[in-house]
Amino acid sequence: MKPWEAYIRKAVPYVPGEQPEGNRIIKLNTNENPYPPAPGVLKALREMNGEQFRKYPDPSANMLVEALADSYGVKEEQIFVGVGSDDVLGMAFLTFFNSERPILFPDVTYSFYPVWADLFRIPYETPKLDEAFRINPEDYKKANGGVVIANPNAPTGTALPLKAVEEIIKANQDVVVIIDEAYVDFGGQSAVPLIHRYENLLVVQTFSKSRSMAGMRIGFAMGCETLITALKHVKYSYNSYTMNQPSIILGTEAVKDREYFERRVADIVRTREAAKIRFRELGFSCTDSCTNFLFVTHEKAGAKELFEALKREQIYVRYFAVPRLDNYLRVTIGTDEEMETMYQFLTSYLKGL
Amino acid sequence: MKPWEAYIRKAVPYVPGEQPEGNRIIKLNTNENPYPPAPGVLKALREMNGEQFRKYPDPSANMLVEALADSYGVKEEQIFVGVGSDDVLGMAFLTFFNSERPILFPDVTYSFYPVWADLFRIPYETPKLDEAFRINPEDYKKANGGVVIANPNAPTGTALPLKAVEEIIKANQDVVVIIDEAYVDFGGQSAVPLIHRYENLLVVQTFSKSRSMAGMRIGFAMGCETLITALKHVKYSYNSYTMNQPSIILGTEAVKDREYFERRVADIVRTREAAKIRFRELGFSCTDSCTNFLFVTHEKAGAKELFEALKREQIYVRYFAVPRLDNYLRVTIGTDEEMETMYQFLTSYLKGL
Repeated sequence: MKPWEAYIRKAVPYVPGEQPEGNRIIKLNTNENPYPPAPGVLKALREMNGEQFRKYPDPSANMLVEALADSYGVKEEQIFVGVGSDDVLGMAFLTFFNSERPILFPDVTYSFYPVWADLFRIPYETPKLDEAFRINPEDYKKANGGVVIANPNAPTGTALPLKAVEEIIKANQDVVVIIDEAYVDFGGQSAVPLIHRYENLLVVQTFSKSRSMAGMRIGFAMGCETLITALKHVKYSYNSYTMNQPSIILGTEAVKDREYFERRVADIVRTREAAKIRFRELGFSCTDSCTNFLFVTHEKAGAKELFEALKREQIYVRYFAVPRLDNYLRVTIGTDEEMETMYQFLTSYLKGL
Repeated sequence: MKPWEAYIRKAVPYVPGEQPEGNRIIKLNTNENPYPPAPGVLKALREMNGEQFRKYPDPSANMLVEALADSYGVKEEQIFVGVGSDDVLGMAFLTFFNSERPILFPDVTYSFYPVWADLFRIPYETPKLDEAFRINPEDYKKANGGVVIANPNAPTGTALPLKAVEEIIKANQDVVVIIDEAYVDFGGQSAVPLIHRYENLLVVQTFSKSRSMAGMRIGFAMGCETLITALKHVKYSYNSYTMNQPSIILGTEAVKDREYFERRVADIVRTREAAKIRFRELGFSCTDSCTNFLFVTHEKAGAKELFEALKREQIYVRYFAVPRLDNYLRVTIGTDEEMETMYQFLTSYLKGL
């Protein structure tokens, strides 16, 4: 080992789902939206002036922040934007979790949380979800350095009622509580209204799921002005111009078209509720998902074998080779046609067992 | 103060140059390129399929990395890409500067270096440039935790010969040496060929200046595979999908058109060399800039007054209210027409003194 290698920060990277390419592929493995972004986004793309790329983007992404403030009924000073909710969450970990005490998040949740904690050397503890993958608010009432709850949770899809979220926030008035609402638009109860009552609450959302903009990398946080200002200071100490011009312009259009947003969310919810019935008919059990994915396990067929069989058919779902989850599959809700193709394969596959 | 405020990371953010809007404005304050991106970039923008934004981008930005590897004659494994060179440099500070010893960079240089060091709690020392704003390689031969040199330097514009850069690298075999080449295409000697000889060397470049893509946020680093892998691990521990689809697609096109790139760089160099003469005729002295900006001071007119007088004329340049620099202006090289308008104003302004 060279001497300089000793000073390298050791990091075990997060491994995202596969990104297979091809026309025949049915991609239900990374919780992408099966529908295109709003028509206004596509129109703004066609009209975009590429000559302006020579100039720096607006570092405050003002246009986008204004649209979000308007849409969520909060002040512009209560909004922070970043390069996907991962950027926003990572920045929030770095900004708010500087206590000596461990932060708390569930043992089964978004797998980036322990990765950020390790990267920034933040101690953490992971209270266990119960047998039905439910969060017990009591577990979050001990001394800690901060709390992070994905609600709805991933990869389980289940949601905590707002009352329970508020109970956790109330019990943690000395630290910052982050509620990660990546999937909230598909059926969870958002904690955004609580930011006006709890100054230590930060709510994080994303454009990657309900707004069909995973490819643009846009996430945002809402909270009191003190939290947002602190995030901005850290952000501007890292990179003043993180959101590029297309993200700002197209993100703004995505927010403005509420009708399209609501219609597409309703389409996915309808397909998801039908999927719950179909999966159960096929012998699966599934959690009561409020998201754009289902978390399913089969009474007879092993998850790993199913995952591989589906992959051979060019149907990609997500399999987690970790304890407690290794007999489950996370299946993103696709179009009705994609889902139908999958059911047909599963029907014949399961018959052959 | 609320208890949770005690755990907030305190950061003093970097303050970027103003981004004034308006058609009459001559914007020579943030070292943007006055020319549009390559024609291939604009063509790819017009042909871009916005429906694909629903999907995550390729986390490895493979298309862009391939184009860069091809253009710079290095292996793909020797290239790291990020959201502007600020993202790449910030990530490099976090990844490589974990020694107890202070890192070294000049007292007068890119003002983001001390900001990152403070953010990540990295100790640092800042050897003084000499009277002519030159780096003395001897200052970088003491025990340290790493070295960062902007070459050419900013805001001075002056360059260190490659021999001196190599001398600094040779003297620092126990730590990582970062050469920040944001402006190298305008006349500096690049250290890229040295990455094959020195495993502890990381060279960082950007699309924001010579490639007219500030608005897209693309930066990259080149170094040995060990350095690049370490950077990737930290990056994937922070945000797997930082580069959005337009950045990857349009960045690739910018790299492919070498002829346009070289022609536009030559245009700017020609305007710069003419500007040196014109500024001197007007009573300014200026450093021997190898960049797309000049660093000038006037024998009679105070820099702050000049800055403000120019601003009243809607001509924006950069003024730094810090010791040693507070009688200088940093003037980005614009088009010949923009420069002419500025000379005309300066001529009449200076006559009136």
